[in-house]
Amino acid sequence: MRLAIKEALKGKANTYPNPRVGAIVVMDGEIISTGYHKRYGAPHAELMAIKKINNDISGATLFVTLEPCLHYGKTNPCTEIINPKIFSKVVIGSRDPNKDAAGGMEKLLQKGISVEGPICENECRKINKRFFTYYEKKRPYVILKIALTLDGFIAEKNGTSKWITNAKSRKSVHTLRANCDAILVGNRTIEYDNPSLTSHGVGKDPKIILFSQNNIDTKTKKVYEHNPIVLNKGENNLDPKKNVDEILKHLYSKSIQTLLVEGGGITISHFLKADCFDELHVYYAPKLLGKGLSFFHGKNSLEQNMGLTLKKVEKFDNDIKLTYYKK
Amino acid sequence: MRLAIKEALKGKANTYPNPRVGAIVVMDGEIISTGYHKRYGAPHAELMAIKKINNDISGATLFVTLEPCLHYGKTNPCTEIINPKIFSKVVIGSRDPNKDAAGGMEKLLQKGISVEGPICENECRKINKRFFTYYEKKRPYVILKIALTLDGFIAEKNGTSKWITNAKSRKSVHTLRANCDAILVGNRTIEYDNPSLTSHGVGKDPKIILFSQNNIDTKTKKVYEHNPIVLNKGENNLDPKKNVDEILKHLYSKSIQTLLVEGGGITISHFLKADCFDELHVYYAPKLLGKGLSFFHGKNSLEQNMGLTLKKVEKFDNDIKLTYYKK
Repeated sequence: MRLAIKEALKGKANTYPNPRVGAIVVMDGEIISTGYHKRYGAPHAELMAIKKINNDISGATLFVTLEPCLHYGKTNPCTEIINPKIFSKVVIGSRDPNKDAAGGMEKLLQKGISVEGPICENECRKINKRFFTYYEKKRPYVILKIALTLDGFIAEKNGTSKWITNAKSRKSVHTLRANCDAILVGNRTIEYDNPSLTSHGVGKDPKIILFSQNNIDTKTKKVYEHNPIVLNKGENNLDPKKNVDEILKHLYSKSIQTLLVEGGGITISHFLKADCFDELHVYYAPKLLGKGLSFFHGKNSLEQNMGLTLKKVEKFDNDIKLTYYKK
Repeated sequence: MRLAIKEALKGKANTYPNPRVGAIVVMDGEIISTGYHKRYGAPHAELMAIKKINNDISGATLFVTLEPCLHYGKTNPCTEIINPKIFSKVVIGSRDPNKDAAGGMEKLLQKGISVEGPICENECRKINKRFFTYYEKKRPYVILKIALTLDGFIAEKNGTSKWITNAKSRKSVHTLRANCDAILVGNRTIEYDNPSLTSHGVGKDPKIILFSQNNIDTKTKKVYEHNPIVLNKGENNLDPKKNVDEILKHLYSKSIQTLLVEGGGITISHFLKADCFDELHVYYAPKLLGKGLSFFHGKNSLEQNMGLTLKKVEKFDNDIKLTYYKK
């Protein structure tokens, strides 16, 4: 299964919004074929592996990181191409959380193929965190991104935030945007910064979502060229958890699998206070302000364990990016 | 000379407060001997290299990263052991900034040995930054160290700062302390935290310096077990530059080659505002406070270039340490 995971990882971010999947065909203890899902719309891993083998064999085992699908999408169901004359057993790494595609395991059993698993489930799930979060928690996978001075400010007192980080750091943000379905900002960010919120040509542009306290006129701003979704906070609804739940419910219904929250402080703090996010990306630039707009508008103590694990550290010249995963 | 630098680096932090020095003897284009200064009090690099060679040779060249010394300290002057019958040339990497030891170049010329250099001067100076700063700027080399939450606070509003960082981070601070001659803190840090400010057994303990606004009674605190130097700010002297200059002048006279400033915010801000420091060490722990004691008590703009270069990034589990050098 570990080899199948290695295969799956070859799909990189190209399979999105599909999961990354890898498959291995084993016969008499030997690997006779491998395959992976290359990109969204391309054949699934199972087909990639199966089409390479000789149809005369029998008693083979198929290892696949995700339960073979049962639905007609861009391709035919994988369960259809798994021939019981060839395969006596299928070993899966994780069950499919997408109800439309799930049920493959039962279908294979009906066809007389024995099914084992899930094995190496944690590892198999880890390679598709966004996909599992979306289908299991019925909300987008949430990434909070913030750029700070060393003393923790997101902007000068007057709102000026151009630029805290350097060009290389900002380029990495464009890449991050290209790998998310939607980007959420508050209306103050639009007012102060008038950002385009695009990937600046690095990849596809995320859908823009405005989280608006009141219906101020921001229609002259750049984001309006990209037909944003405007979500108004309920007038009396100052409960971060409620606000966040409503936003995420709405975006789930719009098939937004990954949401990037880019600020400002009020919007980010909503997600932090609601304790509803999956990753926190923090950039630091070697600057100090002393006074400025703050990042987190809540009140915590040092004893509070936020459950953050430092997963990645990236250096962009004199800037640094820290990527934390939420437990 | 690059090989001599490599030799010098073998001395690590053990030569302190002496500089790290490496020496290479070359004869007819071939390296016939190498040496380095191993630790404070041990023979200098020149002697280490020379004692390995055959005294019958002549016309050799000695490469040494620092001008050979001319003074009687723990060892005899290096210029004495460089025999003109053996050496026709000495190539130096940097001149000695310590007036008590300098003048070796002239002495060698008097002995009829030709002298070249400094060559690779920047590289040779870089391996002894503290040493050059102390003798040339006539002040200690200043390292500012601060531990912060992700949103840039050094403590909760009530002063609680135990603990922001984890045990591994704190252990690295103990090592840092063991490699500094003195450690400076403000009296609020003593009042709030009552720290011991020792190296906790990792190495030698730095001399403790208290930077005190007023003569409050802190004699019951742990640092008083270590006979600290107390420097009172002048009553009407609120000029950070003046305060810092006075502190550093005093510590220079006490032969403090490296000063570690550990806080709190007021003390660190004095050095930041005075723009008088050589390194800034920032620890971040994955915590948020929202409200707390701030790190920098000044007022800068984003356009202000602090001239900080990110030199080192260290991960201590979920904490991170950033080391910046001041240009």
